[in-house]
Amino acid sequence: LGEIALMERIHERLEASPSPEVWSGDDAALVEVSGARLLFTIDALIEGIDFDLSYSRGADVGFKAIAVSVSDVAAMGGRPSRAVAALVLRPDTRVEFVDELVTGMNESCSTWGLGLAGGDISGGAEISLSVAMIGALTGAPVLRSGARAGDAICVTGRLGGAAGGLAALRAGRGSSSAGVKALVRRHLRPEARLEEAVLLADLAPSAMIDVSDGLVVDLWRVMEASGTGCEIDEGGVPRDPGLDEVVDLIDPLEAALIGGDDYELLLAIDESRLDDAVSSLSGIDAELTRIGTVTDGARTIGGRPIDLWREKAWEHLRGR
Amino acid sequence: LGEIALMERIHERLEASPSPEVWSGDDAALVEVSGARLLFTIDALIEGIDFDLSYSRGADVGFKAIAVSVSDVAAMGGRPSRAVAALVLRPDTRVEFVDELVTGMNESCSTWGLGLAGGDISGGAEISLSVAMIGALTGAPVLRSGARAGDAICVTGRLGGAAGGLAALRAGRGSSSAGVKALVRRHLRPEARLEEAVLLADLAPSAMIDVSDGLVVDLWRVMEASGTGCEIDEGGVPRDPGLDEVVDLIDPLEAALIGGDDYELLLAIDESRLDDAVSSLSGIDAELTRIGTVTDGARTIGGRPIDLWREKAWEHLRGR
Repeated sequence: LGEIALMERIHERLEASPSPEVWSGDDAALVEVSGARLLFTIDALIEGIDFDLSYSRGADVGFKAIAVSVSDVAAMGGRPSRAVAALVLRPDTRVEFVDELVTGMNESCSTWGLGLAGGDISGGAEISLSVAMIGALTGAPVLRSGARAGDAICVTGRLGGAAGGLAALRAGRGSSSAGVKALVRRHLRPEARLEEAVLLADLAPSAMIDVSDGLVVDLWRVMEASGTGCEIDEGGVPRDPGLDEVVDLIDPLEAALIGGDDYELLLAIDESRLDDAVSSLSGIDAELTRIGTVTDGARTIGGRPIDLWREKAWEHLRGR
Repeated sequence: LGEIALMERIHERLEASPSPEVWSGDDAALVEVSGARLLFTIDALIEGIDFDLSYSRGADVGFKAIAVSVSDVAAMGGRPSRAVAALVLRPDTRVEFVDELVTGMNESCSTWGLGLAGGDISGGAEISLSVAMIGALTGAPVLRSGARAGDAICVTGRLGGAAGGLAALRAGRGSSSAGVKALVRRHLRPEARLEEAVLLADLAPSAMIDVSDGLVVDLWRVMEASGTGCEIDEGGVPRDPGLDEVVDLIDPLEAALIGGDDYELLLAIDESRLDDAVSSLSGIDAELTRIGTVTDGARTIGGRPIDLWREKAWEHLRGR
């Protein structure tokens, strides 16, 4: 069974959430504890799957473990507040690796203004780092399920960079130029789009998600949750310019559509607020690009069914 | 480096917590988010270390993963509210195992009145289940650091049962009698002492901890945090009566002092409130036994330095 099918199977077996809480099925759970509305999320990074110690340093792993949960909280319209981490170490793990890992987590926490409040250490056969995070919500949460026909579909930044960086690392070309180094940095040290998310949440987007498993997969999740279709302009998807330097290793369009790990934001927003959204982000030197429209019909990219890309995306995720 | 030394090393490298929060160094972190005072904890169960699939079923693993975090929240004087889980599965893990695991988590959540709000699934070389939990705090938190000379040192229930159960399972005698089955249940399906903790927290104990790594190790943690000594009456430590049936496998005193995984509560409380504490627990058919006294002097068990037992306890933890 694949991860998606398994998630659905588990989802069916879980208790329903009491209103107004939203438990599984979004970037983070929305919960109420002691009168406070909180976001709550957990993510695990596993050696050999999410990071490879032949090119990731301990500090990269620590930085990324925090960043991916910050990205989840941000995509819900919240601000990260506190994290706890469960670290599994191999018997032969050097203590310097652990020092680096903590340094990376600290750096990431300081970048996004949260506190690492505790943790747990265990031994195991492979290194893993699970981070759970509590986020604070000041306005309404932005769910995946609110997209409506007619909404503009937009992404922040450029896509495909992380996949390009990983391809360069695997080919032993991670340091070949400044452009390639920038790609590699996107893979090793992903940036959560927190300030972008805070500004966008103020403009009440209908739906938002972070692009962690690739544009096609995460777009499909929003469309499923919202029960809508979409028309995506394939040529309008903003591609990381650094991809031009690794065209022999990875197809730039493929990297942008199914690459994953970019942690940009994908959102649906009423057309009437699109200009405000673009100018709001340009105020912090960030880009917002419209890539399509929510519809009541089929889900298409470049006029062809999204399923053609989805097959490829699942394959890519399985092979990761 | 051992787990304890590594924890201390990491602790030194973490940011200090802003008052009145208490980050690492206790059963759970005390944090403030959106005006709410919360408890926040994470624990990982790893295949081959924390559970063995030759005798733990998926439902046992799921039940225990929730129970150990409930126990951490309880030992701080809080009530568990919401949990999220990060599950790592082997490529050959059967879907029925995952179904069982979810059943066990649901059963545990229902037992202690909390909600499983979300999670994450990854692939890996070994199965693990990390659970993060948010607890609500109604009164003052009970830390490890408040024990004062003269306080009575007490434990709930009986100790050593989980270690006896594990010994019986390893010897292939897990079903040999009703008494042994009860021991095995203590290992596979630990009970968090939540109602006991709620009643005890009302009586303002000076310090409290759950006995997860064994009495000697957890007692030592309280003494270290409080900067005190102790005199423990070795013969007064309540032993699980089922241990009498496995004396050929494990020494009952050793099981009670260093066995671990019993999830009873260990506390220091002003002598003047000891009788109230005992009668409060007897109201829910629970036992509270005084096992010693907090002192300004050395740490002793049965008149001998606690270090003699600590050496043995570390060895036991490392070999687990």
